[in-house]
Formats: sequence, C-alpha cells, structure tokens
Amino acid sequence: MQHTEPMLREGALKNHTIIVTGGGTGLGRSMSHYFATLGANVVITSRKLDVLTQAAEELTAETGGQILPLQCDVRDYDAVNQVIAETVARFGKVTGLVNNAAGNFISPTERLSHRAFDTIVDIVLRGTYNFSLAFGKHCIAQQQPGTMLNIIVAWAWTGSAYTVPSATAKSGVLGLTRSLATEWGKYKIRCNAIAPGPFPTKGAWDRLFPTEALPPEFVEKAKPENAIPLQRYGEHQELANLAAYMMSDYAGYLTGEVITLDGGEWLQNASSMNHLRMIPNEMWDAIEQVIRKNTKG
Amino acid sequence: MQHTEPMLREGALKNHTIIVTGGGTGLGRSMSHYFATLGANVVITSRKLDVLTQAAEELTAETGGQILPLQCDVRDYDAVNQVIAETVARFGKVTGLVNNAAGNFISPTERLSHRAFDTIVDIVLRGTYNFSLAFGKHCIAQQQPGTMLNIIVAWAWTGSAYTVPSATAKSGVLGLTRSLATEWGKYKIRCNAIAPGPFPTKGAWDRLFPTEALPPEFVEKAKPENAIPLQRYGEHQELANLAAYMMSDYAGYLTGEVITLDGGEWLQNASSMNHLRMIPNEMWDAIEQVIRKNTKG
Amino acid sequence: MQHTEPMLREGALKNHTIIVTGGGTGLGRSMSHYFATLGANVVITSRKLDVLTQAAEELTAETGGQILPLQCDVRDYDAVNQVIAETVARFGKVTGLVNNAAGNFISPTERLSHRAFDTIVDIVLRGTYNFSLAFGKHCIAQQQPGTMLNIIVAWAWTGSAYTVPSATAKSGVLGLTRSLATEWGKYKIRCNAIAPGPFPTKGAWDRLFPTEALPPEFVEKAKPENAIPLQRYGEHQELANLAAYMMSDYAGYLTGEVITLDGGEWLQNASSMNHLRMIPNEMWDAIEQVIRKNTKG
Amino acid sequence: MQHTEPMLREGALKNHTIIVTGGGTGLGRSMSHYFATLGANVVITSRKLDVLTQAAEELTAETGGQILPLQCDVRDYDAVNQVIAETVARFGKVTGLVNNAAGNFISPTERLSHRAFDTIVDIVLRGTYNFSLAFGKHCIAQQQPGTMLNIIVAWAWTGSAYTVPSATAKSGVLGLTRSLATEWGKYKIRCNAIAPGPFPTKGAWDRLFPTEALPPEFVEKAKPENAIPLQRYGEHQELANLAAYMMSDYAGYLTGEVITLDGGEWLQNASSMNHLRMIPNEMWDAIEQVIRKNTKG
Repeated sequence: MQHTEPMLREGALKNHTIIVTGGGTGLGRSMSHYFATLGANVVITSRKLDVLTQAAEELTAETGGQILPLQCDVRDYDAVNQVIAETVARFGKVTGLVNNAAGNFISPTERLSHRAFDTIVDIVLRGTYNFSLAFGKHCIAQQQPGTMLNIIVAWAWTGSAYTVPSATAKSGVLGLTRSLATEWGKYKIRCNAIAPGPFPTKGAWDRLFPTEALPPEFVEKAKPENAIPLQRYGEHQELANLAAYMMSDYAGYLTGEVITLDGGEWLQNASSMNHLRMIPNEMWDAIEQVIRKNTKG
Repeated sequence: MQHTEPMLREGALKNHTIIVTGGGTGLGRSMSHYFATLGANVVITSRKLDVLTQAAEELTAETGGQILPLQCDVRDYDAVNQVIAETVARFGKVTGLVNNAAGNFISPTERLSHRAFDTIVDIVLRGTYNFSLAFGKHCIAQQQPGTMLNIIVAWAWTGSAYTVPSATAKSGVLGLTRSLATEWGKYKIRCNAIAPGPFPTKGAWDRLFPTEALPPEFVEKAKPENAIPLQRYGEHQELANLAAYMMSDYAGYLTGEVITLDGGEWLQNASSMNHLRMIPNEMWDAIEQVIRKNTKG
Repeated sequence: MQHTEPMLREGALKNHTIIVTGGGTGLGRSMSHYFATLGANVVITSRKLDVLTQAAEELTAETGGQILPLQCDVRDYDAVNQVIAETVARFGKVTGLVNNAAGNFISPTERLSHRAFDTIVDIVLRGTYNFSLAFGKHCIAQQQPGTMLNIIVAWAWTGSAYTVPSATAKSGVLGLTRSLATEWGKYKIRCNAIAPGPFPTKGAWDRLFPTEALPPEFVEKAKPENAIPLQRYGEHQELANLAAYMMSDYAGYLTGEVITLDGGEWLQNASSMNHLRMIPNEMWDAIEQVIRKNTKG
Repeated sequence: MQHTEPMLREGALKNHTIIVTGGGTGLGRSMSHYFATLGANVVITSRKLDVLTQAAEELTAETGGQILPLQCDVRDYDAVNQVIAETVARFGKVTGLVNNAAGNFISPTERLSHRAFDTIVDIVLRGTYNFSLAFGKHCIAQQQPGTMLNIIVAWAWTGSAYTVPSATAKSGVLGLTRSLATEWGKYKIRCNAIAPGPFPTKGAWDRLFPTEALPPEFVEKAKPENAIPLQRYGEHQELANLAAYMMSDYAGYLTGEVITLDGGEWLQNASSMNHLRMIPNEMWDAIEQVIRKNTKG
C-alpha cells in the first residue's frame, strides 16, 4: 500500500452532495476528484467560469461522477445563496461544504495598502462566513445534518510574517470553525478544518513563491529537506484522503477540530514564510513586479 | 497592598503618547485613566464625539494629564490616518496604540444576517488592522519603536457559541497580533494582546447580558461563584495594571503574546456564552427586543 | 454507510506489526481488533496476563489475525525492551506502537499523597517515554520507518481539575509527541496523538465515574445531551477508524499532531471533570471508598 | 525609564514569604533578588549548600532583605515538606512558591538512556509537583491564599527536538499549572507559569550551549539578530519584573496562565533547539564530552 493511494472504502461518500469553493484548481480540485470517486455529487465554484467548466468536464471524465460547475464570488452573499439553491435544484439537497477558496501573496506588511488587506480578508474570511452562514441556515431549515470543512494553513497557531492579511483571515476562520462547532452541534452540523503545509500546485504555488525573483538562500532554506521534519512535500491524495474522512460519516464524532497536515513543518520552523526576513528591503520592488506578472499570466 | 491599587512606579509611561480606540467608556476609559496617571499623553477615540468630549474633560480633571478626544470610525482608513496626524500635530509623536473598540451581542447564529456578521467583523477586525497598519507605517517611516496592544477575549482558544461574529473577528485579531509581532520585531515594534474575562462595565455589560430577559438558570450559572475558579469578577484597575505594564518599556522583551486575565474562567468552562444553549429557541425573539431597546437607550 | 462501520480499504495495515499497550481491554482492545482486521500483526501488553491471554484468544477468533499477548509493566524499561525483542522474534519486525496504557481516578488533589501522583505519572508518562525510547532506538538501529500513536485526553489544552496527576502526565506525553515528531522525522518516524473524549467502556469508565456515589446533579450535568455539542458518546469503532488511519501509510504526512475526537466537548466545557467542584468536601470519603471497592472488584 | 529598571511600587511584596527553588543561581537568583528588594522574605533552595549560603549572604547584602538558604532535593517529598516547615518556623508563614529548579542538556534522543530521561523528568516534573502539592496542602490547611509560579520554557506549545526529556517534563508542568489553577481557585490559590526565551546566565547557559564544540553555522543561526524578532537576548530584570508582578497581589485575577517572554522567538522559529539537526551524527561524541566536562567544572 502506498500513502498516495485512496484510502476509504468504496461508496464512502454516497448520498453526499458537497460544495467545494475554489474547486476548479489546485487542492480544491484534488479534493473534488476524490469526493466524486467516493460517490458524492460535487459542486465546484470559483469566479472563473471557463476554468470551472473545463475542470468539471475533466473531473466527470476521470471519475464518472456528477460534477456541477457554478460561478460564484464568495464575497457576495446573494451569489452564495444562489449556489445553494442551484445545488438543491440539481441534486435535491446539499450535505457538505468545503471552504477552500483563498487568496494570498507575499509582501512586507508595511508595503500593503489597507485595500490589499480588505481584498484578502474579504475572500478568505468573509467568503467563508458567508458560505457557512448560508449553508447552516439551509441545514437548520431543512432539519438535516451537515458537514463543513475549512481549509486554513499550517501556521494557524503562530501566525505568519510576510503574509499577514492571509494569516489574519485564516485565524478568523479558525475561530469561526470552533464557535460554530460548539453552537450548531445540537443540529448535527459538524465543523472542522485542515491546516495544510506545503502541497505544491501548478499555479497557486508558483504565484505564491516566485522562485525566479527570490534570493537563492531563501529558496535553499525552503527546500523540504531543510524545512520539514519528514523532508518532503505533501501529495494531493494525502490531503484528499484526510478531507474525505472528515467529510464522511466515519468522522461523525469529530467537530471543532483543526488537523494540521504538514510533515511537522510548523513544529520545526513556525511559519516558513518567516524566512522571508532575509530578503533586503530594496529587493521587494522587483519581487512585486514578478508577482504581478505571474498573477496576470 | 490591595490588588486594586495602581502598581507601576510613577512616571512609568512618561514620554509615551498612546491612542486608545473606544477610550471614552468602559475598560478603554479605565486604561486611558491609568496611562494618563503614569505620565502618558492619551488620545481617546470613538464614533460619539459628545461621549468622548465629556470623558476627556473628566479624565483630565481626575489625572491632571493630557487627554485628546478625537472622533473616528475605525472602519474608515482615512479617518484612522487622520487621528494619527492630529496626534502628531498635538503631541509631536505617537508611540502606542490600544485597539480596544469593539461591538458584540448575543444571538443564535442562524438568526443573524450576513450584514450583522459584516458589521461586527468590520468594527473588530477591520478596525484593528486599519489602525495597526496606519500605526506601523508611521513608526517605520519615523524610524521609531512602537507598541500595540489588542484587546480580545478570554475564549480566544476555544471560540464561543452565541457570539460567533465577535469570536470570529477576535480570532482574526489574535492571528494579526502574532503575525505582526514576528514581522515587525526588527523595527522594534511590539504587538501583544490581552484576553479579558468578565470585567463588568455599566453600559457594555448590560447591553451584552440583558439580565432581565435571560432565563434565571442562565443568570445563576453565570454568577462568578459558579463560573470562575477565583469566584469573583475582575476589577478595572487589575486590567489597567496589566495593560500599562504591556505598553511600558518594562515589557520590552514581550511580543506576540496573549495574556488571558479571567480568574481562570476559560479553563473551567471554555466560553461562558456556551451556556446560552439552555435558552429555548422561542425565547430569542423577546431577548432580541430587549437587546435592541437597550442598545438604543 | 454508518459512522460505526470500519472505514479503511481492506489490507490497509498489511505488513504492519503494531504493539498496543493496555491492548487487552477497553479502547486498546477495540483498536487492536480493527488493526488485526486490516491485516496487521498485533501485540497486546498489560500487567495482567490472564486478561491478555483471553483477549488474544477472542481477538484471534474474531479477526482471524495474528495476536500476541505479552505481559509487561511499562514502567520497567527492561520489560519494555523485552516486548520489542519478543515481537521481532515472532513477527520479524515491529513497525508501530500505540501508547495506550493509563491509570486515572477522580479525587480532590489535596487528598492525594505524592505517591499517588508518582503512580499515575509513572504509568502514563514514564511508561510512554520508556516505550517510545525503546521503539525509536529499534527503528533507528534497523534503519526502518516507524509510527507512534499516543492516547491522551480531550482536555489536553486546558488541563483538568480532580484528575490532576493524569492531566499532568498526559500533558507531558503531548510535549513528548511533538518533540519526537520534530527530531525523528528525518528517520521517517512519525509521532502523533489522539485526545479522546468520552468513549464509555465497561470497566475503566465505571471505575472512573462511580455513578452510584456521585451527586445526581453531577451525573445529570455529565450526560452527553448536556455536556457535548453532538449530544452523544463516541463509539469505539469511531476511535478505531481514526487510530487505524493515523497508524497507516495513508497518514504518511501527518506528524506531531494531536487529534481531538470528543464531539466538541472540550470546546463547550473545557474538562468535564471540572464539574466535580459541585461535590462537597465531606462527600469525598464515601466516593473514595466506592472507587477503592470498584478498583479491586 | 529603561526596560532594565525595577518596575513595581516599593513594598509590593511586603508581607510575602516566597520559596524559590534553584534560587541560588541564574534566573532564580535574579528573581529572589528582586522579590527581596520589594519587601518579601525569600527562601532559596538547591542541592548545593555552599552555593546557597554564599548567594544568601550576597543577596542579604545587596537588598537588605531576609534570605533563608535551605538545602533541598526537590525529588524528595519529605525534604520538600521540611523546607515548608522551616520556612514557617523562621517567617511564620509561606505565601508563595516559584518552581524554578531544572535540569537540561542537549542530545539526540536516541543517544539517551531511559535513566537520563528519568533524571530530568524527576527534577523538573516530580520536583514541581512535589513542591506544589506540599505548598497547596499547607495553604489549604492554614486556610490562607497562596501563589505559585512555574518556570517552564518558550517552546511550551511546540515541544523541542534535542532536549526532549526537558520538553516532556516542562509540558507536564504546563498541564499541572492549568489543572491546579482550575481546581484550587476556590481556595484562592493562584497558579501561573512563565515561559522564558533566551536569558543568558553564566553557568547554566554555557552548560546548555557548549559553544566551543558546536558547529559555527549553528552558533551563527542562534545569534539573537538571526533568531529573535526583537533581535536581542532578554535581561534578567525583565524576567524578574514579570515574575514579581505575577507573584504580587496586583495579579490577583491572573490564574492558569502561561506568559511567554522571549522576544517573539518561538513565533519565528519554534524551538531554537531544532536547528541542532544540522549537527552531523558523528560530531555528537565530541559534544557530549565537552558537556560532561563543563558540567563537572
């Protein structure tokens, strides 16, 4: 048996209908893929309809499952409610929600405008409570159980330099997770989080770490053999296995919990972003230009 | 010696100029009073100019210190910047910031609109990062040290039912505190938090707990002799003592830290708000009406 | 699908040989049962050979697996080493260790002798580091990966009144878990913990809560519908599912992590033991007598 | 005002009698010095009577206070009780306890015997619960309030590689701190901890970091400008200020709390000891010899 194999029994998510925000790319897509394999209906959302549509086609082909792509800006509560309505229209119900949509980029905080802060906090935190509130109200009104899973970040406990808006918002999501778990347990709504370490993804990862613009000594320090006790990056199926467990009925007694899956990185280093302090101030202009270029690309 | 006496040596905050948001009432006012007593110039802000002006007059009379009242909505970044500019105009500099302004009320989360969520998160979290960002940029530009203190809440680690928007926002502030402490330490900017337990205040406290509308068994359970290991509420001077220490140079090696001052309550009970689960759903309409009435009053 | 069904694919623990301390009864036995079902060789240890032998026979009959009962006092390092040697002699290797043996009883701390403290700390903490040290040395010497799982308790973060020696020792195990995870990651040794909430077990549970001697209002308060957000106790298979995942290669990127599985109890109440404060001092003599009688029984 | 000046009002610890284990050297001595300056009677204990006696003479001369040196091995409960009895005989009462005695040394864990583990755990953890139990029983029997302060370590939350027995024991002390705070609050016994970062001390510090034997790249990495957000070590008076506050009545509402005073180190790096992973295995024989030589010296 390999750690990269799917782990749950077949049909583990049968009769589940799960919305995955940011489900068209990266880890969101990997989770959606595995959920569909296990028998769930999956709704993937993002702001980019073309990316979503293509992802839905590919996921359907790969898994034989039911995948519904729905455009949605998580900052817009009405749009969020619309996703729930369309999900119910298509699949008859919605039983699960993965708040995975996010935004992040590296920068010294003093170089940020308050608007940059707002943007990240609105996507990560407001987007999460928008969707959680709409989903919770729906479950309570329908008198049905529900399961939420929030994707936060491995430095949940220490915060992180150089990605402060994201760290702030993710901490807020952590508080939301535990608070709703306590309050809504009586409605059989479970609410948990995963705090992932480094799971490289074509796209998001390159945008976060513009390696070509970063000092070689940072790149060296960030290598898994130097930064992570288990000395490797994570594989997407490893995160998908954990997420599927947490969304399934097998985890029916798990609520209010954050599971860090990071090869031990935060215990060895706190946030790996902290090493960015070795970048001299005058280098950040160039780094910012590369980030802007990559983000557009 | 009594625990309610001022503890620091005279002049401990001489040469400090400290902005206290929400400084006109409650704990904010108690901290401002003690800071002024210790020799600091104090700027108090809130949205209500009349409350501020009267508080400033009284604080000046009581302490003989310099108190500047400035109207400010912390959600408005330009207004925040204006406070810093006026503080510098009046006192020549600003060395400290206490993010104390907050909003909160009890409610089952499924009764909330997303706008109610936005309102609390905007005051508590956006207000705090607006002020922290403006203050940090100012200190860095002036090449001077600075000290921030964020007032969060005793259930920082467990979250809280029935005050979920506040718990969410306060958790975000916790992440902000630690992240900025790590990143801005090199600029000699310290960033800490206090997580207070129950310090009753005429006004805020009554609005939060509309005792007349709550079930007697909740009121009984919430009594300090039942809810708190040390079996009493905190006194404002006890919080002011801790805050003054954390703002002073005596705490020059303290950063990224959250100090819980709650008589042990969270270790015994997690959030005391959780007991609100004993309120039957049908009673919340009446409670909400009392809260609305009290808030206007 | 039910939450009480086994969740992992067949053969998920094939080629694993796992030692479970305290494996003859309670949760230890439930984990051993599921590990064997999944294809692992299982060694169960405890101080009582007769209990072990009978458990091994029953487990073999139930699972068709290989179960080896070995008498061992975990406080005795030589005995611990002997278990590893006999395991290797029988199965050719040892790949996993579950530190599950424990001791606990309720009492006001001021009624305890230092020897009572020593007894609990020696079983829980010394027993765990004895076995972890012996197991780690073995893996490193053999240049093979290894997986450790420590069973702690849901109030890992808050401590607990009235079970202070156990809370102290379990906190120590938590520090050990994270420290070894960080240091031994380079040897591909993973080290994690589960912090279980209430999973009633004939025997241990009755000894811990002598219901017949406790005040009815405590018994009432401790009922799951009052104490636990999800309003029920946990089922053994739920814990076994999580434990099997954590021991398997599927969790190959998980290390240094504590997973709380408690239906949200600690977030709502901190330690449920704290409610024992409602017992008047003069009642503890009678309670102690019942505990002593139950323990002998 | 300087951060290295004493901060509390004169006489802040008048009428206090405080036992400081390990009070003859290092941070224990610095705390004892400041407590005496503030008016407390101070009892200092350690295993080495000659060191204690000289320290007591010097402290008396420096502070004009009452200092009683008492030889005591904290692992021996009877000896601990004897210290309390002699303190009462001399000063009429004992009101405070600082559990500061400790032992630690760096080593890969797999090089340790179980006896080395026992030695550290017995001094740090058993010593602390021995003294806490004896002190608590005394306060409860006398029906008087009491204050305990446990000195742990900045990596309380992450554990630490290469000092695993110490990290394990200190974690246990953390659990003890919170558990006793919750249970004994009703007796007005407060129980808190400080988690200090790097406060260099002639002696203990050199024994812990045998710089002459360590690789230059580790020494470089461990320099405060590289390892600590505030880019400096702590000063003893800074820790003494915090400790005196926590022992005083001014902190009368503080219990169950751990205050980390480390310049932000753990948030940036987790445990600084983790960097010892850069030492090749074959170098540890030489390091161990230097440690043994220094320890004897």
